[in-house]
Amino acid sequence: MLAAHYAGNRTMTVGETDPAPPGPGQVQIAVAYNGICGTDLHILNGHMDARVTTPAVIGHEMSGTVAALGEGVTDRAVGDPVTVMPLAWDGTCPACRAGNAHVCQNLDFVGIDSPGALQGRWNVDAGLLVPLPPTLSLRHAALVEPTAVAVHDVRRAELAPGQKAVVIGGGPIGVLIAAVARSFGGDVVVIELDPKRRKAVADLGLTVLDPADDTVAHVEEWTGGAGADVVFEVSGAAAAVLGAVDYAKVRGTLVVVAIHPEPRPVNLQRVFWRELRLLGARVYQRDDFDTAVALLDAGEIPADALITKTVPLAEIQSAFDALTGGDAMKILVDVQAGQEPA
Amino acid sequence: MLAAHYAGNRTMTVGETDPAPPGPGQVQIAVAYNGICGTDLHILNGHMDARVTTPAVIGHEMSGTVAALGEGVTDRAVGDPVTVMPLAWDGTCPACRAGNAHVCQNLDFVGIDSPGALQGRWNVDAGLLVPLPPTLSLRHAALVEPTAVAVHDVRRAELAPGQKAVVIGGGPIGVLIAAVARSFGGDVVVIELDPKRRKAVADLGLTVLDPADDTVAHVEEWTGGAGADVVFEVSGAAAAVLGAVDYAKVRGTLVVVAIHPEPRPVNLQRVFWRELRLLGARVYQRDDFDTAVALLDAGEIPADALITKTVPLAEIQSAFDALTGGDAMKILVDVQAGQEPA
Repeated sequence: MLAAHYAGNRTMTVGETDPAPPGPGQVQIAVAYNGICGTDLHILNGHMDARVTTPAVIGHEMSGTVAALGEGVTDRAVGDPVTVMPLAWDGTCPACRAGNAHVCQNLDFVGIDSPGALQGRWNVDAGLLVPLPPTLSLRHAALVEPTAVAVHDVRRAELAPGQKAVVIGGGPIGVLIAAVARSFGGDVVVIELDPKRRKAVADLGLTVLDPADDTVAHVEEWTGGAGADVVFEVSGAAAAVLGAVDYAKVRGTLVVVAIHPEPRPVNLQRVFWRELRLLGARVYQRDDFDTAVALLDAGEIPADALITKTVPLAEIQSAFDALTGGDAMKILVDVQAGQEPA
Repeated sequence: MLAAHYAGNRTMTVGETDPAPPGPGQVQIAVAYNGICGTDLHILNGHMDARVTTPAVIGHEMSGTVAALGEGVTDRAVGDPVTVMPLAWDGTCPACRAGNAHVCQNLDFVGIDSPGALQGRWNVDAGLLVPLPPTLSLRHAALVEPTAVAVHDVRRAELAPGQKAVVIGGGPIGVLIAAVARSFGGDVVVIELDPKRRKAVADLGLTVLDPADDTVAHVEEWTGGAGADVVFEVSGAAAAVLGAVDYAKVRGTLVVVAIHPEPRPVNLQRVFWRELRLLGARVYQRDDFDTAVALLDAGEIPADALITKTVPLAEIQSAFDALTGGDAMKILVDVQAGQEPA
């Protein structure tokens, strides 16, 4: 079977591998689709070389069907459509003991810290499988993982129906957060720098603002002088962090979704003055995954609009190149295309 | 009667004034003691000249007795010991309507935005009065307001009994937060740069660390590798903000208590990674005031240790000078000393 490896030096290689049978407690998945994530781009660009051992099969936004069952696995059947919640926690650290296993202090993120889904056959612990309804296409199901991120972010913000949210950044995660927030009954405005992305966001029926305009005045007017209930910082830009607090109401919430590799200047005077709440939000809990499946199945997530294109596994480098160029939202890899029959 | 005025140009002047009778709905207070606050120092140093109209009678940490009742005030009696919760909100802004009147978007902070307590007779709206028990000395009662700040901060953090808190900064507010957190059942460590202040904090029976030591390792060991439940940033220092997140457990809370006039670099990667919560906390609610009175009355607050000295109103400039020099914790002004009989 073909598998894609991050080989270091900004390179993905595709080559034949001989799949091992699933071990005890494992399930072997025939991977159908794998979406490329911003984190995968960071890996390709060498930013995570301290963490990723090369050559590494990466990939963690996936869908597939059960191909084989390891010893002791009785609650799955060959052919079942599934996705994977790619978190393996130790269960013993203080975070796990306090009920926060999803941010375990020794978390193994499957597809980064251990082998991922960019291969024809993938063996994973049966406990990580999330069943998919037959009504959900495997293409759309490849968006379950990033949608679960968005569900986690919106839940972490405790956004209530009728509340107003500002999403800074109109990339895939920003759009997913906006879609989830809207589905949960929130009113949403997206702020996005790039005109092409602004058009894509507007085409989804979302209000989108250009940060070059007076966005603070817009939010003030929109909220009757109160400020937004929740602000999601999804852009990763220092300027966005500095300005984000200006959108928030007294006791409003700012959720830090993006990765900020450097410390960022934060207007703590405004945080103090308005008694703001700034929350970190990382990955997801199992409930978030189940909700993401349900939202995609119900058509609440603009999956087709988000999936810019689908490429066969053999052309994976082109997918990374297109994402680096910034022209694409989400690119799926068709992992079965070009595979020999198992 | 004598009154102290901030006259601009780093100067306090003391002069005779002719007290007006209390207006309708007001109470005239014979001010007993007034504590000098960090905010008063900021005013003296001109940092708040845009907000403070000179000459200004400042002062908002006070105790006294009711001297006269204005028309329509029936629930107070001359001679009652009282303090004042110095917040006047408009009741109509979005923050007030949402139940957050204490951080009203048009808040009048009495003693900053309108005349304060550094005068022999002070007229205030009767609704701002907080009654004091006869068992609480008026000297200690001058600490009710800063203690209410500490109660608000600890409540905002949702510190539960048995939880562990790090307080960065061992000045008056840091010590009050530590005392309140301890009284609420928390375990507390204080981090303080100044050796004299470290000794003062240690003398209160609190654990105190020198930031030059490996404080993160200390907190790790103290918390069994988890990190602290709550971190209070009371120092106002940029370096403290940057390091504060390293003390906090997964899903731990960092409370921003200090004033940070400039945006500060914050390690948002750590906020994201550990799903931290960063909260602004400003002033207090009425419950916080009542609790502060009760804690002081019960001897839970080291009032005598905090009050470095008491000076007569005529020597108020010396109090500001001593505080600027950093040698004092809290200095009280005896407002009745040297006054002619009313």
